[in-house]
Amino acid sequence: MKAGLYETLERIAATIEERKKAGAADKSYVAQLFAKGEDAMLRKISEEATETILAAKSGDRLHLVRETADLWFHSLIVLASHGLGPADVLAELHRREGISGIDEKKGRGK
Amino acid sequence: MKAGLYETLERIAATIEERKKAGAADKSYVAQLFAKGEDAMLRKISEEATETILAAKSGDRLHLVRETADLWFHSLIVLASHGLGPADVLAELHRREGISGIDEKKGRGK
Amino acid sequence: MKAGLYETLERIAATIEERKKAGAADKSYVAQLFAKGEDAMLRKISEEATETILAAKSGDRLHLVRETADLWFHSLIVLASHGLGPADVLAELHRREGISGIDEKKGRGK
Amino acid sequence: MKAGLYETLERIAATIEERKKAGAADKSYVAQLFAKGEDAMLRKISEEATETILAAKSGDRLHLVRETADLWFHSLIVLASHGLGPADVLAELHRREGISGIDEKKGRGK
Repeated sequence: MKAGLYETLERIAATIEERKKAGAADKSYVAQLFAKGEDAMLRKISEEATETILAAKSGDRLHLVRETADLWFHSLIVLASHGLGPADVLAELHRREGISGIDEKKGRGK
Repeated sequence: MKAGLYETLERIAATIEERKKAGAADKSYVAQLFAKGEDAMLRKISEEATETILAAKSGDRLHLVRETADLWFHSLIVLASHGLGPADVLAELHRREGISGIDEKKGRGK
Repeated sequence: MKAGLYETLERIAATIEERKKAGAADKSYVAQLFAKGEDAMLRKISEEATETILAAKSGDRLHLVRETADLWFHSLIVLASHGLGPADVLAELHRREGISGIDEKKGRGK
Repeated sequence: MKAGLYETLERIAATIEERKKAGAADKSYVAQLFAKGEDAMLRKISEEATETILAAKSGDRLHLVRETADLWFHSLIVLASHGLGPADVLAELHRREGISGIDEKKGRGK
């Protein structure tokens, strides 16, 4: 993976954090979403998950990448609203690798 | 962010790729999901998005991290089924940073 | 249940059918949704399902009724786009009553 | 529509009400879902909405009818958990007919 690509998640999380602190006076998309409140963010999670599903069904790979990016981006917003960030998610994924590989879910009976 | 954390996405994607190639004879969770086909994967995207929403509403931060990890993990599986990986999503997010910041969505009228 | 209430589903289905036939020149909400195509309708199913979930969590009963009405309404649109209507869904629910009560789902192992 | 079909919704709602009162000792699917609590019911709304979407995409009309029936059935369970029933949803749909036809949604700016 190209250098700098990974840091993208961290930089985006930092920008989200700034927008969150800026409050409703800030006219950016993220600040406005924070101003609308949690349900507005959660609607976006559902919406982008459905867009991801429809993009996968369409077979359009560029579309699938774009919708997955939207889904991850809005996940970062929800995480930020709870004082969390991408490192928490990556640490959780890393923990599963450590214990039993990515198939740990199976062990949880899901 | 701790060194190695970012590489988690890439290592998981590599493992998913192996499971995908292994086929249905492989009894791992991921190989079995590939064997079930695309709709089974897409159901998981919807399911984990809803779990993320319910976790956020519950206010349980550990739960929220876990469900977001599940959502991202299953996103990686859908991406892999289309020959894509986390670098494609990160590049898309990076591209948006480059153009107009993370508020580029606004420019797309969404 | 008050007389006439049940016929509401049938009348709405008839109106949807008219709008469907009217085509894109018709400026009604339903005709425009048909003009946008199936994915647009399916997005609404997902959106209204999520609204129903959020309304239930809010505890606002009027809100819950309204969102469930939206969900059923858009279900009728999707059904109409496949040449189906509310009688088909009611007949399926009735069939389950006939066989083994509303718990037939259990028998299907879901 | 065949006589008796409409009453199906009311009969199912009555059975759901009985199961709700029976409590967790009752081993029926519905009583067990009530015992699991609201989030379990809401997961089913999301799940069946996604099944409806995937069925529509598959073009299998019988499948679409079955999944829509599942979606409406679980809607009735969520309504029952809030002391509501199908008559409330039908009355809301009827109210919209009365005001401005089924296109009233447009007037709400949605």
